Amino acid sequence: MNRVRFALLSLAFLVLTAAAVRAMDALPKAPMAPAHNPPTAAKIELGKQLYFDPRLSATGTVSCNSCHNVMEAGEDDRPVSVGVDGQKGARSAPTVWNAAFLSVQFWDGRAASLEEQAKGPLVNPIEMGMADHKAVVERIRNIPGYRQEFGEVFGGSDPVTIDNVAMAIAAYERTLITPNSPFDRYKAGDKQALSAEAQRGMKKVESLGCTTCHSGPVFAGPALPEGQGFFMKFPTVAGSGYETRYALAEDPGRYSVTKSEDDRNLWRVSQWRNIAVTAPYFHNGSVATLDEAVRVMAATQLGRDLKPDEVSDIVAFLNSLTGEFPQQTMPRLPVMPEKSAIE
Amino acid sequence: MNRVRFALLSLAFLVLTAAAVRAMDALPKAPMAPAHNPPTAAKIELGKQLYFDPRLSATGTVSCNSCHNVMEAGEDDRPVSVGVDGQKGARSAPTVWNAAFLSVQFWDGRAASLEEQAKGPLVNPIEMGMADHKAVVERIRNIPGYRQEFGEVFGGSDPVTIDNVAMAIAAYERTLITPNSPFDRYKAGDKQALSAEAQRGMKKVESLGCTTCHSGPVFAGPALPEGQGFFMKFPTVAGSGYETRYALAEDPGRYSVTKSEDDRNLWRVSQWRNIAVTAPYFHNGSVATLDEAVRVMAATQLGRDLKPDEVSDIVAFLNSLTGEFPQQTMPRLPVMPEKSAIE
Repeated sequence: MNRVRFALLSLAFLVLTAAAVRAMDALPKAPMAPAHNPPTAAKIELGKQLYFDPRLSATGTVSCNSCHNVMEAGEDDRPVSVGVDGQKGARSAPTVWNAAFLSVQFWDGRAASLEEQAKGPLVNPIEMGMADHKAVVERIRNIPGYRQEFGEVFGGSDPVTIDNVAMAIAAYERTLITPNSPFDRYKAGDKQALSAEAQRGMKKVESLGCTTCHSGPVFAGPALPEGQGFFMKFPTVAGSGYETRYALAEDPGRYSVTKSEDDRNLWRVSQWRNIAVTAPYFHNGSVATLDEAVRVMAATQLGRDLKPDEVSDIVAFLNSLTGEFPQQTMPRLPVMPEKSAIE
Repeated sequence: MNRVRFALLSLAFLVLTAAAVRAMDALPKAPMAPAHNPPTAAKIELGKQLYFDPRLSATGTVSCNSCHNVMEAGEDDRPVSVGVDGQKGARSAPTVWNAAFLSVQFWDGRAASLEEQAKGPLVNPIEMGMADHKAVVERIRNIPGYRQEFGEVFGGSDPVTIDNVAMAIAAYERTLITPNSPFDRYKAGDKQALSAEAQRGMKKVESLGCTTCHSGPVFAGPALPEGQGFFMKFPTVAGSGYETRYALAEDPGRYSVTKSEDDRNLWRVSQWRNIAVTAPYFHNGSVATLDEAVRVMAATQLGRDLKPDEVSDIVAFLNSLTGEFPQQTMPRLPVMPEKSAIE
């Protein structure tokens, strides 16, 4: 991306920001579901089963939950995720909690919706490794309990389809919301909910300019129409040393989707919700601690070298964005009677 | 094992059988816990967290639940299990449901208790792959929420120990009981609970002699004192062809523990509870279907070639041993704040 284009893009961000973004919003109670995929209790339960079912992977060992672990903070606490046969990917699993509030999915925004996202890892050879979507559908269709549930939820003569698999999983994911963080309680009027340190941090992220991008309900930018991504170049400011130390520019980011030079090292702006409990950080999971992540962002995005107390104030504020993870029941995965699902 | 010794051993089994075994018992409500590990609600919840926590493996990707999946029927629906780095073991994961009623653990009975069993996979290089128990304890001790819970549950100045880890996991596992199978309801007086086919199968497994070994509360033999195993040679009758087809004699079984020739191809008698939903079958997971498993057992253990209707009757009876899997809540795994658990 040449400098002029980048400056124009930045200007566009700032204008957008001034109009609608800069606010730090409380978390909405529930995300909007697309009109074609209204949630029902049965669909959500089916989606939960599919989300937790490792039989949706080639080896029967990797489920959606393996990398986006709902019982952890929605991810896997590792630098990069591990798929079938122990294969490692190149990117760190983002948390599934509150992902429904993001307007595009994946680090590079290559999926416009949760529905579209859910179809990807199933057939990624280093993730769940199924040969194709037909193989996924056949695996599910062979399990009698699933056949029955898909019929009840979606109807029709052939209810087990990859689109219905994705819709059920997305419907479940839209229930994964973490309300009542200290920040949300503060915004709702409980002025004791944030420590003095966290309140200083809150002012600091505004005055430094972090919230130019990290705004909105999950601090990942404004709530845009589904599929319209809010991207930013990372790293933008060269010369900090972090770029090399953490290999931040090696992965071309959105360029790998569009093959446009303008998109080199462009990334979807990450959410801040639960950021204190979803280490390690950045697309390649190269930074293990939150304080270092704050230093890296200040240096690479704002050209700032923060003082230790500035870092600790910001870290205190980011901790205040850890919400409540509602208790969930375990799904019962439909059994394969009298024979093995995986041979 | 020479033939005389084997005949003597068989005789001993038969005597034991006549005295105490042959009964097919209803499932008890709860197993006995050892005196040194009384269950409490907090200990069980801690054990559930540990059981589901993949951070107890070297790579942060394999938990107890990965292979003994509580949401499936307590195992992984695969021939053999997959540990860290995609490594495959040589044996099929037995179900954790009702394992508390077994008097020894592992296929070869090398653990005398659930507590002892829980320590094994953690440090098995092809399972969870931790360097040693010290590394497991350090991983857990680094997570503040675990430190606090261990203190509350076990007390003392150094509550995070490998023995306490194992005790918590075992306490959780003792809650994994599947009551109210059709067979149990039949035994309790509901004569409609078993189909005519299943009732014929129930008589058939007694008349054929299956229940000489497969008796007791989980059909894995008599309830012996903890640590006293009920083992049987498998395969015993040569010449069926199954031995070669399914490589049944390649793994020396209990011999690998004792190095005694008498123990070659000796195995703990497997439970029948939920057998219809825990395919594939046998120590090496080589038989994919229940009907084939029935044919193999009749041929290799009793020298019998069953007719198709005998097989289908027995399969109907075995299906009646599928119990109810109680709904469970998901544990919340204690978070590692501001840094990554796995680097």
